[in-house]
Amino acid sequence: MSDFLTVSRTAHDELVTAAYQSRGFSADEAAEGTKLAAEAARHGIRTHHALKALHLDHLFGSAFGGCVPGAEIEVVKSRFPGSETWNCNRKLGQSVAYRAINRCIELADQFGIGQVSVDNAFHYLWGGGYVMEAAERGYIAYTNCTSTLAEVVPFGGKFPTLGTNPHSWGFPTTEALGFPLVSDWATSTVAMGRVQALKREGKLLPDGAAVDKDGKPTNDPNEVAALLPFGAHKGYAMCLLNELYGSLIGGSLPTLRGRPAKAPEDEKTSSSFYFQVIHPDAISGGAFAKGRDQMANLKAVLDDVLGHGNEACIVPGQFEAEARKRSDAAGGLHFTAAELAEFGELAAEIGVAPLEAK
Amino acid sequence: MSDFLTVSRTAHDELVTAAYQSRGFSADEAAEGTKLAAEAARHGIRTHHALKALHLDHLFGSAFGGCVPGAEIEVVKSRFPGSETWNCNRKLGQSVAYRAINRCIELADQFGIGQVSVDNAFHYLWGGGYVMEAAERGYIAYTNCTSTLAEVVPFGGKFPTLGTNPHSWGFPTTEALGFPLVSDWATSTVAMGRVQALKREGKLLPDGAAVDKDGKPTNDPNEVAALLPFGAHKGYAMCLLNELYGSLIGGSLPTLRGRPAKAPEDEKTSSSFYFQVIHPDAISGGAFAKGRDQMANLKAVLDDVLGHGNEACIVPGQFEAEARKRSDAAGGLHFTAAELAEFGELAAEIGVAPLEAK
Repeated sequence: MSDFLTVSRTAHDELVTAAYQSRGFSADEAAEGTKLAAEAARHGIRTHHALKALHLDHLFGSAFGGCVPGAEIEVVKSRFPGSETWNCNRKLGQSVAYRAINRCIELADQFGIGQVSVDNAFHYLWGGGYVMEAAERGYIAYTNCTSTLAEVVPFGGKFPTLGTNPHSWGFPTTEALGFPLVSDWATSTVAMGRVQALKREGKLLPDGAAVDKDGKPTNDPNEVAALLPFGAHKGYAMCLLNELYGSLIGGSLPTLRGRPAKAPEDEKTSSSFYFQVIHPDAISGGAFAKGRDQMANLKAVLDDVLGHGNEACIVPGQFEAEARKRSDAAGGLHFTAAELAEFGELAAEIGVAPLEAK
Repeated sequence: MSDFLTVSRTAHDELVTAAYQSRGFSADEAAEGTKLAAEAARHGIRTHHALKALHLDHLFGSAFGGCVPGAEIEVVKSRFPGSETWNCNRKLGQSVAYRAINRCIELADQFGIGQVSVDNAFHYLWGGGYVMEAAERGYIAYTNCTSTLAEVVPFGGKFPTLGTNPHSWGFPTTEALGFPLVSDWATSTVAMGRVQALKREGKLLPDGAAVDKDGKPTNDPNEVAALLPFGAHKGYAMCLLNELYGSLIGGSLPTLRGRPAKAPEDEKTSSSFYFQVIHPDAISGGAFAKGRDQMANLKAVLDDVLGHGNEACIVPGQFEAEARKRSDAAGGLHFTAAELAEFGELAAEIGVAPLEAK
């Protein structure tokens, strides 16, 4: 990791917390936003660490009412004991997501499965972080959300009317693999950030990733007007799923989402979150072959999938686990020199000491 | 539909029911197997109607102990009121699936979300049929299962250690679209049946669909040794999900599944099913823009996705809904002449009158 500099987590956390507080977020919110940012950096999620979180807040968030510091979560009255719906009043997405996944765990402990749906939400950054935490605690966890902007064209269409709508699953595989299995991806073939990167590098996009302004497929990053779902009609369905959940929760029309200037007064422009946790005991039939217990059966199945010449295959979450090991071995968080410079600008802006490499 | 002949549903149902009963299935089981077969044909699911169901039973099912006529479902004792796990003792998959989705609906009515996991299962044929029924009744429904044989190579691997593991979702969009939205697909790029069809037609496979005996990508159907997941690492994760659910429920090692001759005495060789139903009221925040109700908001979001030049896009479940309209307009079920001839062989085998086109 010679390209990376190591920064102390304490110093990182102090700076990021100060940045959140300078924007009016409460101590709780700043701590939750900082935790997610640090965990993203620790796990090598370079697209969703503190710089991205604070940049997103700057573009769509606390300065514009897209996100409201200090907002209170209201639990909507419901007749269903295994489910909750929250109006989070545009509270910081990371705060809401950590609390929602914790509430789902409590519901799963009681009912075997629990769900929390969130209306009036603002970007939770890295969905994998929340399901990973639940998976490390021994649960099966899932979340999806509607992304802020509609950047994805439906399969067979021309105009972007869908978010990049990610799905994140976590499974309790720490005993089987040494780390939680976490599958976490957007439903577009590539992210818009990747298009920008390829443009800078003068490289082409893969097939099936994007369209130009007329809705025609293109490999040229300079011509890209919108993204395509991964995996043709199957990825399109995965992308559409989040819009269906979102619309039933109370979400806005996708083409107005994150675009208050474009929306009529009486239309919403917020995102929606959906969380679900399953207690593994609640899906166990208890009858595993060769006297294995449930976790040993999970390991036996994974060993079978990754055997027979498939030993080089990557398990979802493996890259994140390897990055975490490297971070922990270095005793801090890894950033590039360019990222460190950006942290420096942030520190100057709020008048605190800059982050320094160890 | 000039290639199709119309057969009376009553005549179809009598023949298929007689076929199930001739193999020892109970009246209940025969009725449930027949219902799923008729609904598959009615909705244009040509790969999972009666001929496929009875062929699968012939290859892996009642003649070999893979499926056990008259088996009783045992509900495993559990401390979780929102969840059930069933040992179905290899009862007919269609009977188990219809009952499981109904039980999930009862649990969702009570808790907002309910799940039923099934161990010792045998092929339920068309997952879309079960979630479609729940969606028509107003619910969000989901099912996945582990497919009988491991035919799919993990992303980056060489040897097939995963089933074609399908996912099926149904959403209550009848008010919004005129039909339930049903997303139902295997996680391989194409099915093995499609490879056989292309071989007969002398055509090539699309890229990313299959590998040869050395694990190298191939487009030649004659060289195909195994299938690839759709959508690279994302489709691989979707395929792996079913193995994770299956392993936690009590499922067998994927490379032994459906292959009792290959399996040691003390290993299992059965599939697993997972079902989940959500009551839409349980995820509603109740605050929809412009005074819309929940279903009107769902329609507004779908209209937005399918507007803006995307009017030609297909919604998952639309082809099935169109086939159903054609079947209902013709007053029966559509089959090809070749299929009708196969039904004739079946009728002769069990000594009943053949199916005749209207």
